[in-house]
This record gives sequence, structure tokens and C-alpha cells, in this order.
Amino acid sequence: MLTITTPTLVLDETKTRTNIQRMAEKARVSNVRFRPHFKTHQSIFVGEMFRAEGVSAITCSSLSMAAYFAAAGWEDILVAFSVNLREMETINTLANKVSLGLLVEDAQVVQRLGQDLTAPVDVWVKIDVGAHRTGIDWQNEEAAEQVLRAAENSPRLRLRGLLTHAGHTYKCHGPEEAIRTFDESNRCMNNLRDALAQRGFAGLELSVGDTPGCTASPLIQGVDEIRPGNFVFYDAQQWAAGVCRWEDISLVMACPVVAVHPEREEAVVYGGAVHFSKDTVTIDGLTHYGPVFSTQAEGWGAPIPGAYLARLSQEHGIVHLPEPELGKIQPGDLLYIVPAHSCLSVACMREYITLQGQRVPCLSTMPTG
Amino acid sequence: MLTITTPTLVLDETKTRTNIQRMAEKARVSNVRFRPHFKTHQSIFVGEMFRAEGVSAITCSSLSMAAYFAAAGWEDILVAFSVNLREMETINTLANKVSLGLLVEDAQVVQRLGQDLTAPVDVWVKIDVGAHRTGIDWQNEEAAEQVLRAAENSPRLRLRGLLTHAGHTYKCHGPEEAIRTFDESNRCMNNLRDALAQRGFAGLELSVGDTPGCTASPLIQGVDEIRPGNFVFYDAQQWAAGVCRWEDISLVMACPVVAVHPEREEAVVYGGAVHFSKDTVTIDGLTHYGPVFSTQAEGWGAPIPGAYLARLSQEHGIVHLPEPELGKIQPGDLLYIVPAHSCLSVACMREYITLQGQRVPCLSTMPTG
Repeated sequence: MLTITTPTLVLDETKTRTNIQRMAEKARVSNVRFRPHFKTHQSIFVGEMFRAEGVSAITCSSLSMAAYFAAAGWEDILVAFSVNLREMETINTLANKVSLGLLVEDAQVVQRLGQDLTAPVDVWVKIDVGAHRTGIDWQNEEAAEQVLRAAENSPRLRLRGLLTHAGHTYKCHGPEEAIRTFDESNRCMNNLRDALAQRGFAGLELSVGDTPGCTASPLIQGVDEIRPGNFVFYDAQQWAAGVCRWEDISLVMACPVVAVHPEREEAVVYGGAVHFSKDTVTIDGLTHYGPVFSTQAEGWGAPIPGAYLARLSQEHGIVHLPEPELGKIQPGDLLYIVPAHSCLSVACMREYITLQGQRVPCLSTMPTG
Repeated sequence: MLTITTPTLVLDETKTRTNIQRMAEKARVSNVRFRPHFKTHQSIFVGEMFRAEGVSAITCSSLSMAAYFAAAGWEDILVAFSVNLREMETINTLANKVSLGLLVEDAQVVQRLGQDLTAPVDVWVKIDVGAHRTGIDWQNEEAAEQVLRAAENSPRLRLRGLLTHAGHTYKCHGPEEAIRTFDESNRCMNNLRDALAQRGFAGLELSVGDTPGCTASPLIQGVDEIRPGNFVFYDAQQWAAGVCRWEDISLVMACPVVAVHPEREEAVVYGGAVHFSKDTVTIDGLTHYGPVFSTQAEGWGAPIPGAYLARLSQEHGIVHLPEPELGKIQPGDLLYIVPAHSCLSVACMREYITLQGQRVPCLSTMPTG
């Protein structure tokens, strides 16, 4: 039995293992390398569930996260974030310890890397296939070639391939659109690989992978590696994108009720922006911070129609809760809320608790510097 | 000279002291108790700056924060968050150690408190003057009376007064509107106090205070206590509300540049949702995550016209940066960004560094349970 006193992320271990097994199996069947992104769970405990599925290569979003997992025995780590030259010391420490993969998109940065590295690293060139966040446009062969040439000239840089994150699949509506965007993205990557082969760069690998695309696609084709992360827990945004079912979501925030306001169909919970973050989800035309689920003897059940986390301040959450549910709750009760975006809620909370009551610490996102 | 390798909150100690002195002086001149909210800075170091101004009573937003400051020698702490019955044990630990103030808005909760407390506490009734977050509507005298009666019956509860947070001033446009809202809110509180006096509750104190109202009002009248918090640093939201100048803002995020994309007038920085949170600010009709400031030899200067943090993902920030500034920066440089909401950025980062290079740790927002 769980004793919850403050806002707490509750993990369903069984659902988490199922999510991991399903994706690992898809990668096996598709014959692609499975390099899951660990930025969603940020936890050694969940990492071991991946190891049990034969995973040995992982993705991290920061060097501090890579150092955390390196200390836990992970030896093949790709930091899927464009190289920050100010962290050269940390890069070298890690590169001397594990097989480290780095992301580059700028020839000058590659040159500096080549000069300052004290151990070899794998290098992936970041490609933009439409998310317009980072990377070289997939049609800009010249820019890609320039970066590859710079990498070629540095003996410490092992040129691995091209990498993208098709983040725009997060905005898709339904699995068909997720698959379409994923396939289109992979076509762009293959086009660029072919073009670069003609420019003298043979054997480049392709690394792709976002949760909507990798979840919705029945089979992964035309690439060498996938790096989804969010699927380990899923969340309301993934449900809204149409790629998971409510019962696949394995992480929920339990929030103590501190006040009930029947006159405005609202309850106030302990659970605010410092716990959930302020990312939103849009469901049935309504934008909010996450749907409220029914409470069961152990954990949570199904979504309560019309119940959602409507507003957030630093520590407060204002939950819209229609009758008759509103009449059933009182201060001291718990409400279970599925976060809009589980990655950010984990980053805020830095720990969760399993349904069996085990505390699971996560990486602190404190700066390494 | 600062050595910054990762996203880092940089504190201007001099500006911070000036902000504190100005508000402390206003409270002195107005003859009201100054009980600053410590949820913005969450730091023992900044707390000492308040102590130097004669402050001895403080406000916290959680019991864990109260425990943190109690351990640092603060003895008069109001937790301005409606009582969470699940934390009764922590409440009793604190109540036995310091002069603890609690917030109530529900007669049943008051009754439970009265039964379970092992030491006396101060009790404030939370009143809603228009923010519609928590509390009893200021026109609902019956509900307020009901809570007060419940409190009267418990010998461990010392009835102190009525408390509100007029959070709707955050949405104001200019100091006149902030003053108007603040005055209106204080009138509501006085009306309710008068009505409750007629119902037999004499001598209730009034505790109010939000940063826009307390900053914009030249003098604080008709209340007994103010609890502003954000003014210690201010931020882009307060500037947009028209209550501070850019040069009053004393906390800025320094972000390493990792890529420059001239074709779309954007730079990519290391600094994402896990550092800034996802709160936004609207300036000149444009909603974003914070303006970019010029870099000076030591710290930051003035806002760069047209430069702002346009998009955020977990670790990435996409900065819109027009020419000629864009042409001046390259990977490895730093950009200084004023957060939309400093409270949430502090909660994400949990530490800052002074311009002199001193590391200032903050409370971790980890659950106490």
C-alpha cells in the first residue's frame, strides 16, 4: 500500500516493462539497432529493465546524464545534443571512459573537437528533416559534406552517420499521420545518404526515431538505428497524437486534494508547475495540463470524463471535476493525473515511486559545471 | 570572471539587495509587517540579505521549503498553501520547532487540524478576491464564519486573520492597473474583515501581497502584512506587467550557443524546458520564453531588439536573433536570457551563481514524503 503525502509520480512497473519489450521486439524484427533515449525516465532502475531486454547502447540528452549512466555501467552512450564546446573537459572525461557518440552540425565545431579531444569519439551529423530545431537541412548536401570533410580530417573522430529527430511527429493526429511523417523523414535521410555516398562518403549509418513514428510504424525500414524515449511511459500528448492507449501510460502524478469548490466545479490539488512543468495537451479542442484518472485500490483506472488539470501555479493545480465525481472527493484524498508530457514531469520531480512502494531516484538535472 | 559551461542562472547580488531594500523600506514607511515570500529565491544565501534588512517573518509555499528555512534559523514561517492533511506529521514536526502559520479554507480541515496538532499554530483563512485559484470568496461571509468558528473551537489554533493572493495582478498592463487591482483587492479584504467583526470576530489581521501590487503602490494602506516574493529578482513577466525596469531584474540565464542558423535568423542554445520551465511572456504582441540581453564583460546589459527565446524543447532553446547580432555570435559563446518567470526557472535549476562566481544552492523541490 502506497503512503503518499506530497505530489508523487507513480510508476506501473508491469506496464513499463511491456512498453519496453514491445519496442525492443519491433527493433529485433526490423533488424535495426535499438538505442533508446534515456532522457524520459532518467533512472538507473528503469535502465535495468532495458538491459534485461538486451539493450546495450543508449541515448542521453546531456553530458551530465551520460555521466550518470556511465557510472551505472552503460558503455555505449550517444549524447543526442549538438556539441557544446564549453563542456570539452566533461567530453574528454567521458570519452576516456566509455564509447561516446557526439552530435555535430558545424564544421568549425568539428575542427575544435578534433583539436581538443584526448580520446576517440563516434560522430553523427545532425540533420533537420522538418522539425526546424537543430541540424543541417536534409537538402543542403554542401553543408553536410563540409561537416563530414572536417570530421574526416580528425583522427579522433570516427564518422558514424547521419542522425535526425523528427520532432514534428509529436504534432500528428493519429497513427497514419505519424507513420507518414516517419516514412517521409526516413526517405529524406536516405536521399541525403545516397547523395553523400556519391560525394565520396560511403557507409554512413542512419539514426532516427521519435516515439510517435516508432510506435505507430509496424516495422522500421531503411534505417540502422532507432532512438525513441517517451514510449517507456507515454503520456497525454502521445495519447492525443493517437499512438498509445490510455492503458499503455505507465506513469501518473498522484496529487493530494487540499480544497473542493463545488460552486465552480473545481478541486485544488497540491501539484503545480514545479511538479508537472507547464507543458500542455489539447484533447477534444480543450488545452490543459493533463486528464484526471479514476482512483483504484492500487493505482489508477480509466480517465474520468470531463476531468482535467485546468490551471497551474507554482505549487497549486486547479482541477476541473464535474459532478458526480466532485461530490465524492474531499481534502486529504488523492487524484491521479496523467501528465501532458512525462519527460518534463520526470525532470521536475527527479524521482518516482513504484506501485509496490519502491522509491526510484532519477538523475538530478543540476548543471555539471 | 565566471566560468560557465552549462545553462546557469546568474545573480546580480547588488541589484538583488537594492530590490530587497526598496521593498523593506516601503513596508517600514507604510507601517506594515514585511513577510516576504521565499518561494522565488529558495535560498539561504538570499534569505540572509533579507535578514540584513531586519526581516524576521517569512512566507513559504510548501512544508519542505519551511523545513529548509527553519533549519537555517528562521523562526516565524507562514506556509501560504492550504493545509494538506496528508502532511500532518511534517506539520507537527515544524509546529514544535518554530512559530508556524498555516492556511485554511475548509471547516472540516480545520477540525482535523485541531484534533491532530501536537503544538499550537497560527491560522489564516484563505480568501479569494478574484484570482479564483483557492480560498473562500470574499463575499461569502457565511463560509468564512464557518471556518473561523471551527478554528475558535480548537485550542491549538491561534486565529490570526484573513489572507489573500491577488494573483490576477500578474495579468495587469502597467502600474496604474496593478495599483487599482491591489486597492480593490484590499477593499474586498477590509469589507470582509468588517463583516466578520460584526459576526463576533474582532481583531482579524489582513495579509496580502503580490509583486505587481506591492511594487507599483507607492504606499501600502489598510492591511497589516505584505508577502511579495518575485520582486527579489523580478523577470520578463513583471516587466511586461509594467512594474519593473529591465535594469531591476537581477537574475538571468546564461546559455551556451551550440549552433547558428543564419538562414532562419536563429541560434540554438543549451537551455531548454528543464532549465527555464515552459512559462511564457507576451511582449509587443509576441509570446515567447524570454528576451535576450546583450553580453558585457561581467554579466549582461540591455535587451537586444527583436531577440528572444522563441521555442523550447527538453534541453534545446531556439533563439530568434536578427542581424547584425546573429553575425557576431558563434558556437561556444554565451547568450543571456531573462526568464519569463524567475520563480519557475529557480525551481528548475535549484542553484545560481553570483557575478563574483559564488555558487548559491537552493532548496531541492523533492517531495518530503
